[in-house]
Amino acid sequence: MINITTEEAARQLLEQDNILILLHRSPDGDTIGSGYALCMALRSLGKQAQTACSDEIPQIYSYLTDDVPMQQFTPQFVVSADVADTQLIGESLKEYRDKIDLCIDHHGSNKQFARYGVVDAEAPACAQVMTKVIQQMGVPAEGRIADALFTGLTTDTGCFRYASVTAETYRTAAQLVENGARNGVINRLMFETKSKSQAALEKCALETLQYFCDEQIALVYITAEMMQKTGAKDSDTESIPSIPRQIEGVKVAVTVKQKAEKLFRISLRTTEEVDASAICLQLNGGGHHAAAGCSYEGTLEETIEKIVALSAKALESGV
Amino acid sequence: MINITTEEAARQLLEQDNILILLHRSPDGDTIGSGYALCMALRSLGKQAQTACSDEIPQIYSYLTDDVPMQQFTPQFVVSADVADTQLIGESLKEYRDKIDLCIDHHGSNKQFARYGVVDAEAPACAQVMTKVIQQMGVPAEGRIADALFTGLTTDTGCFRYASVTAETYRTAAQLVENGARNGVINRLMFETKSKSQAALEKCALETLQYFCDEQIALVYITAEMMQKTGAKDSDTESIPSIPRQIEGVKVAVTVKQKAEKLFRISLRTTEEVDASAICLQLNGGGHHAAAGCSYEGTLEETIEKIVALSAKALESGV
Repeated sequence: MINITTEEAARQLLEQDNILILLHRSPDGDTIGSGYALCMALRSLGKQAQTACSDEIPQIYSYLTDDVPMQQFTPQFVVSADVADTQLIGESLKEYRDKIDLCIDHHGSNKQFARYGVVDAEAPACAQVMTKVIQQMGVPAEGRIADALFTGLTTDTGCFRYASVTAETYRTAAQLVENGARNGVINRLMFETKSKSQAALEKCALETLQYFCDEQIALVYITAEMMQKTGAKDSDTESIPSIPRQIEGVKVAVTVKQKAEKLFRISLRTTEEVDASAICLQLNGGGHHAAAGCSYEGTLEETIEKIVALSAKALESGV
Repeated sequence: MINITTEEAARQLLEQDNILILLHRSPDGDTIGSGYALCMALRSLGKQAQTACSDEIPQIYSYLTDDVPMQQFTPQFVVSADVADTQLIGESLKEYRDKIDLCIDHHGSNKQFARYGVVDAEAPACAQVMTKVIQQMGVPAEGRIADALFTGLTTDTGCFRYASVTAETYRTAAQLVENGARNGVINRLMFETKSKSQAALEKCALETLQYFCDEQIALVYITAEMMQKTGAKDSDTESIPSIPRQIEGVKVAVTVKQKAEKLFRISLRTTEEVDASAICLQLNGGGHHAAAGCSYEGTLEETIEKIVALSAKALESGV
């Protein structure tokens, strides 16, 4: 992959038409916000552009997606937004995995799969990179485009909370709000709205809270039975990892979620002293230093035993 | 009170020495951050300055307060920071209530009690106003001063989440971070650190969650017994009101907390359609449109019955 600047990416996009924008599977606010913002920006220039995602876009993002009707065309230029690895482009879109012309991303772990790429690992959200690209295309990041970029920025930074947020992030937010991004509405929707089933699921999860290694590891789990009992959807589980993470003194926060009878998804959140991605890599997973994930085949008890043992080892060796 | 600009406030402060800075009782991050920032800024100019609060500063703010040793002097100029009403200056400092020279605040409800005042009701935090005053005094808002101002800004905006946040707020945050404010550390401390007793108390509160009026009212309660059982402190209860508030479709979120055998404190959080302060006023309480409180003498059952009845009436009449 040839690494280029945001200016060069903007120039490439201006030269193209019939542009397909790929989002990653299990789409979150950053891939949706960045992708839709680019799509709207390109359409505002009279181009044909369309986003594509192998999974359905959650209903909560309808304020972004409702005004972007489907366009049908044969893609001539393929862009990925917030995609670190082609494996994250789901099965239904796999034909494009090795045909990506331009990758716009912010993951340090980006697999460099495209012809050209702008990957800013210092940016806490792809939307921060995308804001630059769009502005450098000469499109004002305002109105619905500002909403979309703000959505990406705020969701990937935990509402500007994480340590990854820089002065530039706050400055980008200032610009977008000045240009009409509805920060209050979006933040309330993203961070302050829980479904009743989500509240019920959180209660179940809190009941499973347990500590290991002098309370440096905290763990909660969610079983298929809990999901069924509370009527929770997959998106209702997103807030669960912050339950063990927020507890004072906890260095490794583990969330275990049942995917099938003997298959569990493990999500890890760690403080600076512990590398979550190094732990998950041992179970063929991956991610960032402070947040990573992997899967494990076994019973719930075996899964807990395994991930606690690996986490304890990481705590001991101090990596 | 003569209303002045931040420039004029800065000029006044530059002319003074032996400056006492009053914080409000039950001090929060904004009064502490704004007050300590001003104190450090004045000291950096070689002046004597000291903050004063009728209540103890919570331990969690020690990263701001530890480096500001006590100075003894006879105050010649008294400033209040984030104080809307002299009643919020506690008993032990009441001698200063009618001797305040300069009031720096952001409450629209400010009682105009000082000789001079800078009250910017558009600012979501007093720290946003204080940042300007300090910069206009010619003191760079950097290092520990930037930490203090950032603390005020982030705590009073729910980490930049509330609708009251403007482009200027994000821009102020950008400046402070550029000047060395440790945004990641401060946000983690303020928003992501729960004590184990707090986590245990939240679990108890979630177990009491109940709905009324077609689930438009959600209520949780905390008894003295729960406090004792979980070892929770008073400050551990601050996050409880957001449990009912965050639930989708809930218009009135009620938190009832036992203060004595037959005395309960009621905290109300409402959506735009319902005026929380109007409801609480009927029980001799008060507050803002979206957040208000009051007390009630009676059993837990009576308290719940009363506040639910008043809330239901407000919902019906649509105010």
